[in-house]
Amino acid sequence: MVVGILGAGRIGVVHAENIMFSIPEITLKTIAEVRLTDEIKAWADKIGVPNITNDPEVIMNDPEIDAVLVCSSTDTHADFIIRTAEAGKHIFCEKPIDHDINKIKTALAAVEKAGVKLQIGFGRRFDHNHKKVADVVKAGTVGKIQMVKLTSRDTSGPPLEYLKRSGGIFFDMITHDFDMARFITGSEIVEVFATTAVLTGDQYHECDDYDTVLVSMKFENGAIGVIDGSRECVYGYDHRLEVFGSKGSVRDDNDIDNTVHFHGENGSSYDHIIKGMWERYMPCFREELKAFCASVEQNAPIAVTADDGMKAEIIALAATISAKEGRPVKIADLKF
Amino acid sequence: MVVGILGAGRIGVVHAENIMFSIPEITLKTIAEVRLTDEIKAWADKIGVPNITNDPEVIMNDPEIDAVLVCSSTDTHADFIIRTAEAGKHIFCEKPIDHDINKIKTALAAVEKAGVKLQIGFGRRFDHNHKKVADVVKAGTVGKIQMVKLTSRDTSGPPLEYLKRSGGIFFDMITHDFDMARFITGSEIVEVFATTAVLTGDQYHECDDYDTVLVSMKFENGAIGVIDGSRECVYGYDHRLEVFGSKGSVRDDNDIDNTVHFHGENGSSYDHIIKGMWERYMPCFREELKAFCASVEQNAPIAVTADDGMKAEIIALAATISAKEGRPVKIADLKF
Amino acid sequence: MVVGILGAGRIGVVHAENIMFSIPEITLKTIAEVRLTDEIKAWADKIGVPNITNDPEVIMNDPEIDAVLVCSSTDTHADFIIRTAEAGKHIFCEKPIDHDINKIKTALAAVEKAGVKLQIGFGRRFDHNHKKVADVVKAGTVGKIQMVKLTSRDTSGPPLEYLKRSGGIFFDMITHDFDMARFITGSEIVEVFATTAVLTGDQYHECDDYDTVLVSMKFENGAIGVIDGSRECVYGYDHRLEVFGSKGSVRDDNDIDNTVHFHGENGSSYDHIIKGMWERYMPCFREELKAFCASVEQNAPIAVTADDGMKAEIIALAATISAKEGRPVKIADLKF
Amino acid sequence: MVVGILGAGRIGVVHAENIMFSIPEITLKTIAEVRLTDEIKAWADKIGVPNITNDPEVIMNDPEIDAVLVCSSTDTHADFIIRTAEAGKHIFCEKPIDHDINKIKTALAAVEKAGVKLQIGFGRRFDHNHKKVADVVKAGTVGKIQMVKLTSRDTSGPPLEYLKRSGGIFFDMITHDFDMARFITGSEIVEVFATTAVLTGDQYHECDDYDTVLVSMKFENGAIGVIDGSRECVYGYDHRLEVFGSKGSVRDDNDIDNTVHFHGENGSSYDHIIKGMWERYMPCFREELKAFCASVEQNAPIAVTADDGMKAEIIALAATISAKEGRPVKIADLKF
Repeated sequence: MVVGILGAGRIGVVHAENIMFSIPEITLKTIAEVRLTDEIKAWADKIGVPNITNDPEVIMNDPEIDAVLVCSSTDTHADFIIRTAEAGKHIFCEKPIDHDINKIKTALAAVEKAGVKLQIGFGRRFDHNHKKVADVVKAGTVGKIQMVKLTSRDTSGPPLEYLKRSGGIFFDMITHDFDMARFITGSEIVEVFATTAVLTGDQYHECDDYDTVLVSMKFENGAIGVIDGSRECVYGYDHRLEVFGSKGSVRDDNDIDNTVHFHGENGSSYDHIIKGMWERYMPCFREELKAFCASVEQNAPIAVTADDGMKAEIIALAATISAKEGRPVKIADLKF
Repeated sequence: MVVGILGAGRIGVVHAENIMFSIPEITLKTIAEVRLTDEIKAWADKIGVPNITNDPEVIMNDPEIDAVLVCSSTDTHADFIIRTAEAGKHIFCEKPIDHDINKIKTALAAVEKAGVKLQIGFGRRFDHNHKKVADVVKAGTVGKIQMVKLTSRDTSGPPLEYLKRSGGIFFDMITHDFDMARFITGSEIVEVFATTAVLTGDQYHECDDYDTVLVSMKFENGAIGVIDGSRECVYGYDHRLEVFGSKGSVRDDNDIDNTVHFHGENGSSYDHIIKGMWERYMPCFREELKAFCASVEQNAPIAVTADDGMKAEIIALAATISAKEGRPVKIADLKF
Repeated sequence: MVVGILGAGRIGVVHAENIMFSIPEITLKTIAEVRLTDEIKAWADKIGVPNITNDPEVIMNDPEIDAVLVCSSTDTHADFIIRTAEAGKHIFCEKPIDHDINKIKTALAAVEKAGVKLQIGFGRRFDHNHKKVADVVKAGTVGKIQMVKLTSRDTSGPPLEYLKRSGGIFFDMITHDFDMARFITGSEIVEVFATTAVLTGDQYHECDDYDTVLVSMKFENGAIGVIDGSRECVYGYDHRLEVFGSKGSVRDDNDIDNTVHFHGENGSSYDHIIKGMWERYMPCFREELKAFCASVEQNAPIAVTADDGMKAEIIALAATISAKEGRPVKIADLKF
Repeated sequence: MVVGILGAGRIGVVHAENIMFSIPEITLKTIAEVRLTDEIKAWADKIGVPNITNDPEVIMNDPEIDAVLVCSSTDTHADFIIRTAEAGKHIFCEKPIDHDINKIKTALAAVEKAGVKLQIGFGRRFDHNHKKVADVVKAGTVGKIQMVKLTSRDTSGPPLEYLKRSGGIFFDMITHDFDMARFITGSEIVEVFATTAVLTGDQYHECDDYDTVLVSMKFENGAIGVIDGSRECVYGYDHRLEVFGSKGSVRDDNDIDNTVHFHGENGSSYDHIIKGMWERYMPCFREELKAFCASVEQNAPIAVTADDGMKAEIIALAATISAKEGRPVKIADLKF
């Protein structure tokens, strides 16, 4: 599969390097970056990307390119999806598609019309720990699902500039957990209730946002669940899952740097959990592209569908309303 | 300290045997059980209890008895507290004092008037794991508390007869977790929201009760928290705590039968977590009586006060209302 | 079963209190202690022992007494075994029977002649962790045994006075591990090689003893194994087992005070392993007496036989020779 | 640094791919493989190796090549070291240099004369777990070293053809552990005693070899230690370390596939430890080459010296003699 990449920001760079060095089944032909700098050119040259341009149309008009990775800024996602679909190319789009559900719907209509495949970048579904939990649940090992619990704590809060336009914690951060909750249960979220607090810094007040949240959820299959999230966690990137059911409970824990334990006069100690999203989830970025390639080339089912992307946005909106209005919000009550 | 015990049901028997065999600082003089059987008489004789009677007044009128353990059925607690206070004896009362807040208030007024000490039987505060979490938090090790999480899963649901008059899951089971939440945070719960389900058996529907619950909480100190509870848990009695704060996170786990791990061709395995409340919390029953004795004899602070007992009931009521009405309930809005 | 106890030293006191408070099936009638003090008398009175005397013959001549616990000093064990056997009473004898194999043989002959039961106090066989390992191995779960590893580290070395007459580390400490190695493998040790060092204090040089040892072992069933021992361990009493076989490996670990883990900026930490032999193995002292009672009253197999006691001594002797002479020693080459 | 590789067998392929994809500071120019096949040519072409030849002299005579990785069969190592040294190039040589100590000495003399650097491929020193143990020990955290324990169990035994010419378990397998023992203690092994068995298959008898071994060691610094090794381990590749000292103990454990634990009615379970040397130690192969590059380019100390390579061989020889003759062997008693 030959691909072009739109955007050479952080995630664009990650995907490009992964393809060049570790995903032999994908060929990267062209990167288009509107703010093309000498630094970016040098990097592309160094890792061996054949073409780099500031014009996305170079990719759109290249008949050799089968698929496009949309890694540009969020506000351009919907338009690029539409343009890529029109160009008849398959699409891998970073999350979120958009924060406006109606813009998402327009983009998805274009995809459907063009008959191309679209995968959304919820990479954590490919995490070796989370995926194992999902596999165990899917295999029926925990029996009928009764409760799910997700812990989602970032190492440190984002910069103020990011916060101001992020849409809030439910859209920029907890959306991953909404997706994970749907993924591991295989069931839809039908109602949410958000409990929130600002405890780590006044900037969250300024942006009308929160740093500490709990979201209670009801699922279509009758199960209930809760996500606990924090934007700041001094001991590292703490992401854990638990699914409790009629036959047992399955939990994962964080990966740690090493397995070494020290036992001394004052107790026992071991190393930090792995710090940072990029370290923890790097293998996921490779796996999601391999899955995308399999969808395109072998017609495998799409691992993360456009509907998955839209649902996570809708739930984030429901949680935001719940937090603002102090009441549970039913997903079905939201109209678009 | 010389004590009498009212009630020779399960918990009365536990306290009696613990005092006779393992708490040398307390002397058990008399047990009063209104439904006195030959079996109970034989048991009391075997373990060496000097007197057994069906008349509580034998205890009340005995000038040698310093304190009374109220282990009778819940509906008699408030009256026995009042009678014991009038008799000028210190009181250890099993939880709950009563489900009626006004009856509690009347009983506490009698206690205050008599100037006797009253300790409530929230024994889990003395669990070696939970207590260590509380100590770590109190020492400031986790910094400013941001979130607490409590898992509370019983091995198997109670019989239908019990369910019918238990007052519901928040009163008979989660009340322990409300107390624990207050204990480990050292802060009052100001609002709750309950998410509930019935997933393990129709008897819970019949009794207008739930088997699976999540309670989101807001605390006076700004922290938020969640309790997840289930009446049925196939893998054992699963009770865990986590406190997350500005300087780190502290968690406990269940005790297990042994530390043995087996590694074989099909993976690794180890034993069950300890089954059953009685096994797990037996040492707590001893510790709480030792603390009570220290309060009476050395004027140590009361470990679990009457106010603690009342607060847990009020929060259980708030959670019940939240579950029935599908809305968050502020504790301050409840009027008695 | 009615018993008398010879000796009110540390282990005698432990057995007496366990019987009085926690082993209803055994009745303690008399304690004989040759160095009878007012303090010992007061203690016996407080815990309710009916008789205390300085004359062992009071026990020997009491027809009500079924069995005798020999808890006196090691040098008196053999003689007391002989006397008790002659008195027709069953015997529980603390380890070791004696350091002189021929004295052991004489004592055992008396036991056999009298037809009484004799159990040796290798209490660790009853430890909940070690016993589980033995059960797993016995059940065939690890397949054919290939290797065993035992870690045996005491918290702090014994006083100089003790060292001088202990017979050396293989006799006073590692003998427990020789017994454990035989117990968990169900096979005899046929050869040992000892590697030794003195690293924690000059007193071990003075006593011609060691503080740090490794003993390689060959077993009759073809397996090999190693014991690592140290008289000093700053982080607590570290006793662990591993059995490795054709179908897998089973390991135990130390019990710890609580299950609480803290995760902070500088890593993760948890509590000490349990300190001290007395804390760790206290439940064993109860279990071994219950087993002894079952042998006497229900004719259950003797849990730790006289032969077990003698074998451990012989292996300790072989290890001592190996250490002194720097060569492997075959058990069969030792002649008595 | 520009390198050539001698040998395109398994380890040569690993080094080549690592350099091409993951070690930007090293440039691979030429691979020489005497048994050059079309398959090897195709592979080299696919990963982008500029030149492939069947003539080692192409590398030796190339003035652009700074260093040579000797990945050919063991019997050619010494000669290639000598030839590469004469060509004035730095050398990275897979272990072992040779099984003949005198051939090693001759090769090292050539290296010294030429003034080039030589690093030996004991890659496990770079394992994230083992290295952390070494760092903790080096930092003085365990105090004075008293005992080291190494577990070394391979997943399944090598083929008979390999066994016949491997030199035996101490040379082909335990040599890594001898190196690790020296590495983590920072002290020389002065005496060994080997306990051996054949328990998993008759082929080991045929080859006069063993599948199950224990090696007791004495170190120059006074510490003692033990390696336990097995050629077959059904539950995976089990490699663990422990260092016990005056201030505590540090242990590592195996990496596992994921952190997921399941708790069900019949106990708790989790996944296999990682299977296979190649999975576990792959990152080490990259780190050792990076270290080699740093030695050559920045004159950093050589991570694994020729002396380290020779010492491991000498100790393997001592262990072999000990096993054959059933006696402890002092390293200093071996004469070459």
